[in-house]
Formats: sequence, structure tokens, C-alpha cells
Amino acid sequence: MGLTEIRTAMKVDLKKPADQQDGLHNRWHPDVPFAGKIKGGEVVKIECVDWTGGQIGNNDSADDMKNIDLTKIHYLTGPFDVEGAEPGDVLVVEIQDVQPFQEQPWGFTGVFDKDNGGGFLDEIYPNAAKAIWDFEGIFCSSRHLPHIRFPGLIHPGILGCAPSAEILAEWNRREAELISTTELQRIVAQPPQPQNVHAGSASGDLKEKVGKEGARTIPGRPEHGGNCDIKNLSRGSKTFLPVHVAGAKFSVGDLHFSQGDGEISFCGAIEMAGVITLSLTVMKNGVRDLDMKSPLFLPGPVEPHYGPGRYLTFEGFSVDEKGKQHYMDATVAYRQATLRCIEYLRRYGYSDYQVYLMLSCAPIQGHVGGLVDIPNACMTLGLPMDIFDFDISPVGPAKKLDMGACAVASK
Amino acid sequence: MGLTEIRTAMKVDLKKPADQQDGLHNRWHPDVPFAGKIKGGEVVKIECVDWTGGQIGNNDSADDMKNIDLTKIHYLTGPFDVEGAEPGDVLVVEIQDVQPFQEQPWGFTGVFDKDNGGGFLDEIYPNAAKAIWDFEGIFCSSRHLPHIRFPGLIHPGILGCAPSAEILAEWNRREAELISTTELQRIVAQPPQPQNVHAGSASGDLKEKVGKEGARTIPGRPEHGGNCDIKNLSRGSKTFLPVHVAGAKFSVGDLHFSQGDGEISFCGAIEMAGVITLSLTVMKNGVRDLDMKSPLFLPGPVEPHYGPGRYLTFEGFSVDEKGKQHYMDATVAYRQATLRCIEYLRRYGYSDYQVYLMLSCAPIQGHVGGLVDIPNACMTLGLPMDIFDFDISPVGPAKKLDMGACAVASK
Amino acid sequence: MGLTEIRTAMKVDLKKPADQQDGLHNRWHPDVPFAGKIKGGEVVKIECVDWTGGQIGNNDSADDMKNIDLTKIHYLTGPFDVEGAEPGDVLVVEIQDVQPFQEQPWGFTGVFDKDNGGGFLDEIYPNAAKAIWDFEGIFCSSRHLPHIRFPGLIHPGILGCAPSAEILAEWNRREAELISTTELQRIVAQPPQPQNVHAGSASGDLKEKVGKEGARTIPGRPEHGGNCDIKNLSRGSKTFLPVHVAGAKFSVGDLHFSQGDGEISFCGAIEMAGVITLSLTVMKNGVRDLDMKSPLFLPGPVEPHYGPGRYLTFEGFSVDEKGKQHYMDATVAYRQATLRCIEYLRRYGYSDYQVYLMLSCAPIQGHVGGLVDIPNACMTLGLPMDIFDFDISPVGPAKKLDMGACAVASK
Amino acid sequence: MGLTEIRTAMKVDLKKPADQQDGLHNRWHPDVPFAGKIKGGEVVKIECVDWTGGQIGNNDSADDMKNIDLTKIHYLTGPFDVEGAEPGDVLVVEIQDVQPFQEQPWGFTGVFDKDNGGGFLDEIYPNAAKAIWDFEGIFCSSRHLPHIRFPGLIHPGILGCAPSAEILAEWNRREAELISTTELQRIVAQPPQPQNVHAGSASGDLKEKVGKEGARTIPGRPEHGGNCDIKNLSRGSKTFLPVHVAGAKFSVGDLHFSQGDGEISFCGAIEMAGVITLSLTVMKNGVRDLDMKSPLFLPGPVEPHYGPGRYLTFEGFSVDEKGKQHYMDATVAYRQATLRCIEYLRRYGYSDYQVYLMLSCAPIQGHVGGLVDIPNACMTLGLPMDIFDFDISPVGPAKKLDMGACAVASK
Repeated sequence: MGLTEIRTAMKVDLKKPADQQDGLHNRWHPDVPFAGKIKGGEVVKIECVDWTGGQIGNNDSADDMKNIDLTKIHYLTGPFDVEGAEPGDVLVVEIQDVQPFQEQPWGFTGVFDKDNGGGFLDEIYPNAAKAIWDFEGIFCSSRHLPHIRFPGLIHPGILGCAPSAEILAEWNRREAELISTTELQRIVAQPPQPQNVHAGSASGDLKEKVGKEGARTIPGRPEHGGNCDIKNLSRGSKTFLPVHVAGAKFSVGDLHFSQGDGEISFCGAIEMAGVITLSLTVMKNGVRDLDMKSPLFLPGPVEPHYGPGRYLTFEGFSVDEKGKQHYMDATVAYRQATLRCIEYLRRYGYSDYQVYLMLSCAPIQGHVGGLVDIPNACMTLGLPMDIFDFDISPVGPAKKLDMGACAVASK
Repeated sequence: MGLTEIRTAMKVDLKKPADQQDGLHNRWHPDVPFAGKIKGGEVVKIECVDWTGGQIGNNDSADDMKNIDLTKIHYLTGPFDVEGAEPGDVLVVEIQDVQPFQEQPWGFTGVFDKDNGGGFLDEIYPNAAKAIWDFEGIFCSSRHLPHIRFPGLIHPGILGCAPSAEILAEWNRREAELISTTELQRIVAQPPQPQNVHAGSASGDLKEKVGKEGARTIPGRPEHGGNCDIKNLSRGSKTFLPVHVAGAKFSVGDLHFSQGDGEISFCGAIEMAGVITLSLTVMKNGVRDLDMKSPLFLPGPVEPHYGPGRYLTFEGFSVDEKGKQHYMDATVAYRQATLRCIEYLRRYGYSDYQVYLMLSCAPIQGHVGGLVDIPNACMTLGLPMDIFDFDISPVGPAKKLDMGACAVASK
Repeated sequence: MGLTEIRTAMKVDLKKPADQQDGLHNRWHPDVPFAGKIKGGEVVKIECVDWTGGQIGNNDSADDMKNIDLTKIHYLTGPFDVEGAEPGDVLVVEIQDVQPFQEQPWGFTGVFDKDNGGGFLDEIYPNAAKAIWDFEGIFCSSRHLPHIRFPGLIHPGILGCAPSAEILAEWNRREAELISTTELQRIVAQPPQPQNVHAGSASGDLKEKVGKEGARTIPGRPEHGGNCDIKNLSRGSKTFLPVHVAGAKFSVGDLHFSQGDGEISFCGAIEMAGVITLSLTVMKNGVRDLDMKSPLFLPGPVEPHYGPGRYLTFEGFSVDEKGKQHYMDATVAYRQATLRCIEYLRRYGYSDYQVYLMLSCAPIQGHVGGLVDIPNACMTLGLPMDIFDFDISPVGPAKKLDMGACAVASK
Repeated sequence: MGLTEIRTAMKVDLKKPADQQDGLHNRWHPDVPFAGKIKGGEVVKIECVDWTGGQIGNNDSADDMKNIDLTKIHYLTGPFDVEGAEPGDVLVVEIQDVQPFQEQPWGFTGVFDKDNGGGFLDEIYPNAAKAIWDFEGIFCSSRHLPHIRFPGLIHPGILGCAPSAEILAEWNRREAELISTTELQRIVAQPPQPQNVHAGSASGDLKEKVGKEGARTIPGRPEHGGNCDIKNLSRGSKTFLPVHVAGAKFSVGDLHFSQGDGEISFCGAIEMAGVITLSLTVMKNGVRDLDMKSPLFLPGPVEPHYGPGRYLTFEGFSVDEKGKQHYMDATVAYRQATLRCIEYLRRYGYSDYQVYLMLSCAPIQGHVGGLVDIPNACMTLGLPMDIFDFDISPVGPAKKLDMGACAVASK
């Protein structure tokens, strides 16, 4: 009794390449070997590298962001064998804490180059950019984004159980169909990618198989959650995940110190390495009992709260920046709301890229307004005024401040 | 000093047809005559009919919903001549109260027939349905939706200033283009509609002109707001609206006792007639000073709050119900989240149409999750558990309750 | 169905003296005749005069406050015969709305003269003072207290059921004992007061009896609640009141547009006449089932919220302003916290009386800190910074503003 | 740049007696030697032992609580020399994190014996009792208090700067006066206590002087704060402390994982050893500029929030349990509110001592109701219903559960 530490179910080594660590993997596949075992109801700590596996440095250049190797992402910790979990069960994940490593109290937010990753606003902002964040307890601040500071709603971007072979096949089918039928002049989805596959302890044929079939970790998917990037999956939250394979094969990673709704610059959260403390409980036959097709969750009770009246809120509609009317397109509408906010904050001296980074990682609220008033979807973006150390309320002309610069890529 | 009532800038008569009342109009056009005058900074009350102008009755049939004449909507009160307002100014609207009429303490939520109005889920739920809500102070409940009761986040669905002739022309151009180019097999926008046009006190040529050119009030639009259906424009909020014509020609209407994010069934809020108390203040040259292209707002400090941990939250992804992968489509993703919630609540005995109505009007939080993880947009729908009088937390199989029925249309 | 107004169980006439209206009374006594009947579960409106019965005017003098006749207060509406309520039951009061009268959209806050009423700080601030508040929807502001404005957490100061004869006797016994044994040089309690007794429709012997025996309405009392002056008994709250006599004899009054914790200037809330909407439900044998000796309640979900970080909070300890150490005295400690706040706000140009009025009626949070650290009780006073239109955060010297003056009494 | 850990300004050794560690002290005195230096604006970690210095064990007996040596408490870390701080300045302490040690993830709540420490309810509950709490990330639960679990609002019970010699003399004067004049039959204050004095690195004459003159750390005091036991001084808070000696001599300790308002059982918070991360900033001449006599603070934005409607709230009045009427005594009133809550929760099977422990450490809200309604002060105690895993809402008779037992002392 007493003095008992919580067990660490998996450690990582920040000084060793991620793809040399058996407790990590970067594809979703039912055959990735188990990395460890967790009892039902057990509380464990799980260490995670940052999603890029250490490709980004704490410096003032965005060249690393520009040249990032995206075939490697995301490095997740797991998969874990959860005692007693079987297909049809629900895995209840209670997140009890998320912390950066004490010896690495910093993280990063990036804008990818349009030709290597892109992002929500890449047609307007095609260049790579970066901000480094320093962590001081619950707070973060950045030398690249002066005059803001806020507590993180810390969370994992990714948590989920492995797909079954059938589900994996369906993912590959439908995403391939999209790739083959799209009329968009851009990459719309990432098919399995053997290059830089990391399947934990698997090697040889098994690793090759995972590389050929394994789903990329980039999108969240309805059948298991995965990279849903929901900022509210923070401390105290309980997520209900469907189990598709024996032992659940639960993985977690992509820790975020903070993220805005939408995570708009793609590498948009404050990405970090760290430790997550969680418990895993099996709800037998939960998929049937809850009639559950996708994960659901209860947020925790300790989110930062500023009061509703402290959110300066921008409206966006599904008319794009060229004046084209889209039909009920919430994505276009949310993009417009982000552009309205950029225009507003630019008045104070921030560069557009600085605001793009800020909206990606600060605790922005992205809400649905009206989604039925044809042809215009209306979305809102709420910006908490209290994260600024000056008054941004809409009272008239803005006074420009010295805002320095975010890190940019060399030509 | 003392005993001074707040001035009512416009009264309506609930017993008289809406189109016979000069203080109402149902098209956006710069030439609709002024209905009254309001001083800068003045606090006034403005009475409003419900958005349909009284077409819906307090009864147990949805035939009125099925047969609604949509050429008549929405009946707005105004436009008002705001002293000193000129193009380029910003009109600051502080909403100080919204109340139903004491003699009509009820409202309605409807699902339109797919062939007459439709809605967010009309491909799955094509029939008309209705729920009547009784108001008891801040609370509402419905004989058509047992076991829920909640305080309203009361607000106007529509507020805005009249477009200039140039802006109106642009609206008509771009919406006509959508209509003429869409490949969707459905009505995607509503062009000007002379039938049932009501242009306030205008008659003859002027009324005919408004009918031919006037924009429908159905969509919100970026240049002025209008029907944005944002539930947070409630008591205590301050909305900043661009002014496009001399005197602003401010109109308001479509009062909602409550609405969920998305207002998904289209007639989805709890629609009501009532009185709004507001002040109108002119910020000279505000459009330039705030670099404002669309309205922005500060919500009020008195929204209902349940604590973040009290929202059961459903995840939706942009894979539709037929298994088709869409590219970063937040609209599809939010639709999936609503379907997940319907499936969940159906377990307790609610019919799908009852939940469809409920999600339209209860204080549902529709949030953006990740909007960059190609190809899947992720959206969330948060359902406040405390509006139910039984426990809906995800603990296992559900026990069915007697849920009665919502009003449905005759065949 | 439809168009049915909520029944008004009792009307008042603001132009008629309160003591000539049978629906009002100003003493607690089991024999005050019923003023009306309310069914179990019924929703009703009940009209109330202000607690003084109209003694205070909307003007710029505090003479009325100085010369107030306190033998008349409080005028409550009732008592009501609640169908089926018997001793031992619990009456569940759900407050659904509280509103000022439309034709009287104003209220008042007063400091009494030390020799006629007094208050929490009367030894320091012995003179009468007053502020008049104008109501604009949910907001209030005062010409006597510039630069603040806030939404009201509107509520009744008093609600309760009549005492039984036994309970009344016990009240009179213990308060008489305090009066006869106190060593304080001040009025410590008010015994029954025949002068200006108003016992509703009672006259003659019965009225005389009520005058001689009836408890004053000034204090709240543990057996029934009464004048507890808890600001959180606002819209949406549910209060559980013990029933002591057949029919409950429920009364309500002393409506407050807003109040700070402590209501420190005694006439300290924003006092008003108005209408309360509520439902009354009987919980049979509730006193035994809940093991209830004093009322308990659940607040409503719609209180104003500013975020915890927006409350500038002052600490007070049980060492009084003369340097005397008191033993664990939370009252002294809270008084010190209020004095610290007065000193702080005085820096901006407010007079002490203005702040005294402000702390009485603005949404101040008075919290217990430590109550065990002998000999010092610690109490805190939280002041919401967002009710000011200038920045009061503690960043250095204050700039004085033109703060006008509150109403004061003539010499 | 990067990879830089936050400096730990002082480490403690949990295996070594507290009084052998130079970085700790247990009396307030201006001559306690500096334990370390902190730069203005610097972020540091400071380690702390639990307030008893390790006297309490993780076991199921309360004998250690009964026999505690109170002459030793509290062991604080410091005092620190804050660069540039001089008398008249204000030290701004931003708390950025508080964490238990990873190797000791547990804490304790105790009731002292009436004859050795006592507490708020010791006349009714005179025996020692104890509960041990396990920490799982932000959550805590106890084998001694089944069916509750909650996130901690983690904070230091004590933070403050050393008194000047003059202030110390005044403390000793006024507390001695209370001791010599009280008519209460109990210990009302603790004078300087040479026994077990620990003055950091001081020895010989200096240590003896500190023992003879040094103020006990038990009470908070208006001139510097100290043991104010305010639960809201948690992560993200900013406290403004007056500086009385050169270098400030800032100390901190008595870390609490959680505490209810009042900390009623005296050892009532969840006491723990751990690490606090904070920054110290000097505001020159702040005492004058803020006209500050006692500390003030801004809470942080990340407190747990359940929604106001989730607090079951008990009313207490200043009539004690023997029926005696006290005059405006908020302490008596709050005691009554705690007794009402004990009576209520007893219905579910908890022992009174279990509830006494629970109210001491769970996130209870203790609020001022009315403090002017002579003779009755009214105080409220709000109990968050969501910390229980069963429904405690007031709906009728309670069903008893198996509640086990808290640790008790042997006879």
C-alpha cells in the first residue's frame, strides 16, 4: 500500500530513431504485433514520440517543416493487447493525464508546403512556416507568436483500435475509389505506402504485408476513430471505441499540447512528445448494446473556460473567396470564417502565416451555425480574447504592435 | 425619470395576415420602404411574427407543415431607418431580451416534406413531422417529445441590414450560376420569387420590382448575415453588421426559443412569435476599421451551461451512409454525427423523426473536429444529457420508455 | 390547445397602497388567511410589489431611504393554499422566470441610515445612500454608478412556507433571548411588531394576533428559508421547502434584479416589483425521506458566467479594521474582504458609498476560504471584471474617471 | 534552444526527516535564512513535503492522525530571495502547475482528535479519522470513501512572503491578546512555540530566536496571506502578495490535491507532497499603487466545472444545533450547512465521519447567502452531484449502499 508508481506500459527513447523502436508503428493493420499487454481496468502510462518521430527541431527555420518526410507519419505507441477485449466489445478509454516530457518542455506548430502536405488554406498560403512553443506548466507561449499565451487543453490526436482485415479492405477500397474518381487537382487521400513503413517488431514478410495493405494513419475513420483530432479528448474524457480484433490492439499517439477546432494547418496542433496516463475498460458486447458505428465520448470536466462572452466570433458562409456560390458546404464556410479572422488579426501587425498558425493550435471554437438554409452553410469561429495580452475587442481601428515573425522556410 | 416603458418600435397583429401588415416584409431589397425610425443607441422593442407568418397550428397533425407555402417566408419586421447609419458604417446590435408573447406561450419545430422544403436528412426522412412546444418561463417541453425539457437559448434566426443594389445583383448572379450549373438532383437555391412577395408598405411597381429582384430570406449571406441561424446570438450578444444603404434598413425576425447547431430539420428551431429588445449603435467607418467582410459577434454571458462533461458527443466522418468516401466534406461528416445520435437515442424508444426534431431544436453543440486529415473531415455533435429526465449515459443496453409520437402528416 | 396564457395566481396594483391589498402580507404567521389556491404541479405567475411596498422613488435623493418605515417590510405575495400539501411534505418550487413589470423597468439599491436599518458596514458608512437602476432586457445600469453594466441573476429574496404555531413560538423564544442577552450596542433582532402589520384579508382580532405574534420577515430562518437572500435561487432553480401547515401557505416576494453574495448594504439587491413564474409540486413525506431540517436547492443552468479567471478576488481575514483579532469569525473576515475591494475601486474615482452599493447588488461571489486555521477565518470576495467598461485588472496605478455620484440623503 | 528543463529551485528528500532539510522551515520569521535565489520573472519548480513532514502513513489506521505532533507543522519550502524585491513591492506569483511526486501518487485527509488539533465540527465529531486517496492523473479516489471520484483543483494551501519584524510583533501582540481574553473553553490561537522549531539552515541563537518569536504557520494572516487555504489558488492563478522584507523571503507549501471551501476537518484537504511550478514577478511599489492591505488574486481559467445546476446546495443559518440564536454569525451558519449535508448523505450509508472527510476535501462550494438579515446569517454549501457514481438528487427515500469505512483511531 502506498508509494506505488503507476506502471508505464511502454517507454520511448527520444534519442533513438522512431523506426528502431518496437513499441511504435505507423500504419493501421490487424497484423502489427502486440507491443504490450494491459489488464482490463488497469491504469497505465504510455509514452509517445511526437507524430513526426522527431523530424522537427527547436529552431527558427521552417526548412524541416518544408522537407518533412510524410511517408513516416504518424508514429503511434502500441498496439496493446487489452485483456478480454474481443470484436463487438467497446473499449472505454479514460484519459487521466497527458504531459510533455519534463526534459523536453516544448512543441511545434507547422504549416506544410503546398506541395508536401498542404493544409486547409494552402491555395492562399502555400509556403512552409513554423512556430515553437515553450511549456510552462499548463501554459504555453511562443517566441514566434508574441502577445498570446494560453493553457493547453492537452490531448492525443489519435487513439483507436486496429481494424479487422475486412474493415481494412473496405477502407482501402473506398479511399482508392475516391483517388481514382476525383476531379480535384490535388492529393485527396493517401493509399497504403510501403516506403518507411514501421510495423513495430514485425519484419520480413509481415512488415512487407503491413506496408502494402496497412492504412495510413492520416485520416480519422468512422469505424474506429483514429486521427480524429478532437481537442476535447482531453484529461477526464471517456472515449468509447469499437473493438474489431481480439485483444483490441489499441494504439495512441500524436499528442497535442493544444489544438484549435479544425487543426487547420494540418501540422496544426502544438505537437509534442510526452506521456499519457489512461485506463482501459472493456464493455462486453458494447457495440450492439450502444448500437455504435463510430466512437462516442464524454469530455472531461476541466476544460479551460473563459465565459461565452469572451469569444470574438467570426461568421463564414459557403461563398468562396472568388465569389463562387457552393451548395451547403460547411468546409468552405469554415474556411471563410478562418479568413475573416486572419483579416481581423492582421490589423494588429500579425502576419497572415502567424495567424494561420495561431488558429491551428490555440483553443479556437469551430461551430456549426445553420446547415439547412440553402444554398449557404454558415459556420462560426470563436476566438478567445483572453489569450491575448492586449485588447482585441472590436472597438475601432487597430494599433499595430511589434509581432516579430514566425519561422519560415528558405527559398 | 422612472416608470418609462421601453418604446416598441413596431407592433404586429397575430390575428391579421402577415402580408397585410406594413411593418413586415419577406424579401431582401434596398427599396423596401422604411417601416420606422430608431435613434442611434436607442433601446427598443420590436415585435415579430413567427417566420411562416402563422401558417402552423398548435395541434397534433403535421399537414400544415407538409403543405406550407414557402413562397411567403420569412416575414421579417422592418426595415428600420437607423439614424446616422451610412454605407461603410457598422451597426452594433445588442440583443437585450427575446420573449414569446405572453398570450401565445408556445412554438413549433417541423420537418418539411422532401418535396416541399426538405432538410438536412430528407433523403432518409422524407415525410413531414412536427412537435409543439409549451413555454414555461425559460423552459420548454413538448407533448410530442416526452422526457426532455430544457431552458431556451432564445434568439433571432435572422438579423441584418438591407443589401445595396450592387450586392443584391451579386447575390442573384452567383446563386443563379449555382442553380444553372449544379449536377445535384434537388433544389439548390431559391431565385427571386414574385409570388407572395410582401414589401411592407410598397405596392404597385415598387412591390413588383422587389418581387422580381428581391433576394429570398432563406440563406444567410456573407455580406450582411441575414438568416445565419446561429443559436448564440442570444440575450447579451453584440453583433457587428455592415451597413450597405443609407439608414441601414435593419430587419429582424425568425425568433427561436431554442435551436441546435445546424437547425437540421430546416424548420428546426422552436419557431415562435414574440418580442425582441435591442439597441442599435452606429460605428462610423466600422467596415474599414475592422476590415470586416462578414458580420462578427460577441455572445452574451448567460448561456445555459451544463459543464463539458455532461455532453454525450458523437463523432461523424465524411464517409456517407452508403459507404462512399467524400473529400473533406464537413457537411457529410456532420450528417453522419446526427445519424449516430439518432441510432443511439432510438434505443430508448424514440422514433427517428422524434430525434430528428429534437436535434434540430435542443441545445446541441455541433463542433469541428479535424478538417485537414485527408480525406476525412471529422465533426462532432454534443448532446446535453441533463435535458433528459432519465439517464442516457452509455452504460449498456437501453430500456425502452413510452415515448408517444410526434405529429405526422396524413397520407 | 394553444394560445393559453399561464394563469396569474395573484395580481398586485402598484398604484394602490400595499397594505390595502389582500394578496399581500408582511409577517410570518400560520393564521394569515389564504390569498389564493394553486394546484400541485401547476405553473402560475405571481405578481409582487417591491419589498418596501413602494416607499422608494426613482429620483436622485436618498431621503426616502433614510426615512424608510421598516415596520412595514417586507410585503410578500400570498400565502397560497397548495393543493394536497400537509405538514411533513416538501414543497418543490421551480422558478421558471422572474421579470420586472414592463411599465416599471427600474429598481433601486440602498444604504440605510445607521440609526434606521443599518447594514454590514454601518459603523464605517453610517449615512443613507441610493442608486437607481434602469433595466434593458437582461441588463441593468445606473446613472448613480457609471462604468458598470451587467446582466441580472434575477431572483426572489424571499420564498417560504408559513411556520406552524410551534415553530413560530420557537422563533420568538430564541430571538427574544438573543435580544435580552446581547452585549452588542445595536439592534440585533426585531421582535414581533404590531405597528403596520398587514395580514392580508385578516382584520380585527386575527390581525391583532398576527401583529402581536407574527415573526418579522427580515431574517431567513432554518426551519423554512424565508429571507435567505441567496442570489442563485434564480431562473431554473428548484428549491425544496419543508411544509409546516396544511396547504403549505407559500409566500414569495422581495424580488431582486441582481444581488451580490451577502447583499451587504441590507437594501442591497436591486430591489424591484415584478412577476415570478413558478411551479409548485408536493413531495409527500419529503421531510422524512430527505431528512431535511432546512431548505435545500438546485440552482438553474443559466447563470451568467464569466470564466473563473475573470474574477478579481480579495482576501479577508478575521482581524478587524482596528487590528483586533477575532476567533474564526467569517463575518468579520468577509467584512474585511469588502473593505479591501472598496479600497481598490476607490482608486478609479468611485466614492466609498458607490462601491458599497455596487458590492451589494452586482454579481459578487462571496466564498469561504479556510475556516479552521485558528484564529483566522479567511473569506474571499470575487469581483467580475467584465461588468466594468474599463480595465480594472491589477497592473499598477489607477487612472481616475468621472464617476459622478450616488444619491445621498439631505442633512 | 530547446530541450531545456525548467530549473528546480529546491529539492526535498522524502526519505529524510523534514527538520534535517535546510530548504524547509516551519515558522514565519524575517530572520529565517534564504534557502535559494529566484530571478524576477523566472519560472521554477519547487518541491514540497506534505504539511506534516511525513507523519501520516498510507494505511488503514488513524492513530497517526490522533497522535500527530502539531508543533512541527507546517513544513514550508523556502524562503527564497527574489531578485529585486523590496518592501512595498508586490510579488506576483503565477502558479503554472502543481503535481504530486510520481513515486508517491497518494495523499490523505484527516480529522484530528478534539484534544489534539480539533476542527470545525469537533464538538460533534471528537475522534480522529482518516482517508487515503489514490491519484490517477487528474483524478483521485479513496478506498475509505467509496462511490466518489473527482478531478483535483490542485493548489498550495500556503504561499506568502515573510513578515517584517514590525508585522511579526503585531501578529504576536494581537494573537496573545485573543488568547488572554477569550472566554471560550478551547485553544483559540497558537503562540510562538520553540519546540520543534525548524528555521532552515539556522542554528544556535538564530534558531532559538525564530523559535521564541516566530509566528506559527497555522493561520492565514491579512498582511501576507500565508495559510489562507483558498482552493482557487490553483493552476493558472495569479496571486499578488505584499513584500515586507528585502528579497521577499517567499515560501510555499502545504500542497493540496483538492480541498472543499472551509477545509473543515483542518487536516481537511487531500494533503500531499509534490512539486509546484511557478513564476515570481516583482511589481515595484505595488502596495501603494494597488492600495493593497491583503493579498488579492485572479483564479486560473481551468477549474473543473459541472454547471451550476449540478450543485446540490444546502442552506445554513446562524442558529446552532442546540437552538441558540447567534447574531449574524457566518461561521455558525456554515457549520449548520455542513451538518445538513451530513444528514443528507448519511441516508445513503456513509458514516458521519466519512462525510466530514468528504466535505473537507471534495470540491465543495461554500458561499455567502445573506449577511445582513438580522439576526440570521445565511450560508450555503454546494455539493457537486457529478462526483458520485450514483444519483444523489433529492427525489425521495435513499437506498443505502455498502460504504465500507474510513480509517479510525484505536481507543
